[in-house]
Amino acid sequence: MSKVLMAEVNISEGTDLSIVEKVKEAFLTVDGIEVIDIDSNADHNRTVFTYKGEPQNVLEATKRLAAKAVELIDMTKHKGSHPRIGAVDVVPFIPVREITTEEAVDIAKEFGKYLGSLGVPVYFYEDAQEKEYRKALPKIRKGQYEALEERMKDEEWYPDEGPKEFNPKSGATVTGARFPLVAFNINLDTEDIDIGKEIVKSVRAAAGGYTYVRAIALSLEEKRQVQVSMNMINYEKTPIHRVFETIKSEANRYNVNIVDTELVGPVPIYAIRDILDFYLRISKDFSIDQIYS
Amino acid sequence: MSKVLMAEVNISEGTDLSIVEKVKEAFLTVDGIEVIDIDSNADHNRTVFTYKGEPQNVLEATKRLAAKAVELIDMTKHKGSHPRIGAVDVVPFIPVREITTEEAVDIAKEFGKYLGSLGVPVYFYEDAQEKEYRKALPKIRKGQYEALEERMKDEEWYPDEGPKEFNPKSGATVTGARFPLVAFNINLDTEDIDIGKEIVKSVRAAAGGYTYVRAIALSLEEKRQVQVSMNMINYEKTPIHRVFETIKSEANRYNVNIVDTELVGPVPIYAIRDILDFYLRISKDFSIDQIYS
Repeated sequence: MSKVLMAEVNISEGTDLSIVEKVKEAFLTVDGIEVIDIDSNADHNRTVFTYKGEPQNVLEATKRLAAKAVELIDMTKHKGSHPRIGAVDVVPFIPVREITTEEAVDIAKEFGKYLGSLGVPVYFYEDAQEKEYRKALPKIRKGQYEALEERMKDEEWYPDEGPKEFNPKSGATVTGARFPLVAFNINLDTEDIDIGKEIVKSVRAAAGGYTYVRAIALSLEEKRQVQVSMNMINYEKTPIHRVFETIKSEANRYNVNIVDTELVGPVPIYAIRDILDFYLRISKDFSIDQIYS
Repeated sequence: MSKVLMAEVNISEGTDLSIVEKVKEAFLTVDGIEVIDIDSNADHNRTVFTYKGEPQNVLEATKRLAAKAVELIDMTKHKGSHPRIGAVDVVPFIPVREITTEEAVDIAKEFGKYLGSLGVPVYFYEDAQEKEYRKALPKIRKGQYEALEERMKDEEWYPDEGPKEFNPKSGATVTGARFPLVAFNINLDTEDIDIGKEIVKSVRAAAGGYTYVRAIALSLEEKRQVQVSMNMINYEKTPIHRVFETIKSEANRYNVNIVDTELVGPVPIYAIRDILDFYLRISKDFSIDQIYS
């Protein structure tokens, strides 16, 4: 089985779909790319392209996508509700199969170098960034596009690739590698948001819960339920089943039951396999290649 | 998403791999076929080809495969430990996606008609057979190839397609449609086969268990365990999780634990989804298309 890398490219255009279409055409000129999802959101004025393939093909496709987006998108005119810092806003490369995070970081750095050569300031984040203070995406994107020109004058915020000068049309790009993320929500049969907030504490990293869980409690007014909405940022180290069982057990304390759960967006088959292993004690001989659809 | 049909073609050759190779070449001349598994077993002297694709492509590939196998395999010389009745022994067509059992039956009948036109007596089985007494594969294959010539003289065993006369070189072929099968084994931390046999009764259809479970208890001498070895013949109506939980509960009665379990061979993603639904209460909005690998 060959190496598979995924890219999730966030561009700052989600209203003018003719631009999105041209960007799509540009990256689909590369062979061997499998599109997983293309999602345009008009409120966010943002489109997310998710696709996968062999690492070199994914790198080439991402270069062409980014070059076209930088050509067509003008950040001086951009408005949208989602935080953003540039035309090609964030580009995580995600190891899917037979590929290490280190290899994904190398691809991100090569992509950053290329984009820098086009005149776009580029910041590396997460595992692709060595400086601790600028590893997290929210820190790099602080103040968004509007604050970028001023921030770039500070040596601490010189970009990792590309010009040190602000580029008004493109803004900046953040790229790096990250583990596949799983969006997992658990709906509880209570309307009491305070109970939801208490339950969230049991799993949320920032509150003493699991290291790789970001979680908040939300009111689902229409359903009269409370939702624990989570991003599982490393399902290997903090597996889905463990978080589910913890929330079930904590909810029980308040006589609250789980109504149902939601897996949102792409889910890696490896995360599914972990769940099977836990509940059905599947032996290690089982290969995900046995699964067909 | 287009229709997907799977074929599992069992031919009576598993020792002379040059013949298997020629048969493989013949069916791979059809475009759009995805091979899932090709498994040759020398003891059985049998090869199982598993592949899938759009129904018409699968039908065409299966015709070519069968024609080549009938040309190259001589049943008058066949020896092997697995029950068999012909060169192309059994050909189930299995609905995978967006296709009904009825449509799969139609494909099986078309395939049977074609094979009959090549001079091979063909029996339909399971849903493709209307006569109750000849629906089950073991009944059709009773006495195997060696008994076929005599049996075919009996009006009750005239074939559904092809000549009414015995064909010594090809023997007969059984074809039809069946639901995807899941082979599921549960290993118990006991060496006592009698306990295994008691536990098996809780799930085995013939002993009063679940309708769609065929199960036996086996001794795993080396591991010093007992295995409940099962064919789940309809995972929709008798789901995997239910059988697992029943065996766990029954084993508990004898102070026996489950060591691990095995999913053997191809497993449909829909069966996996059922397991997730049960243990994690995944909402109905979740689509298997969200899973990637």
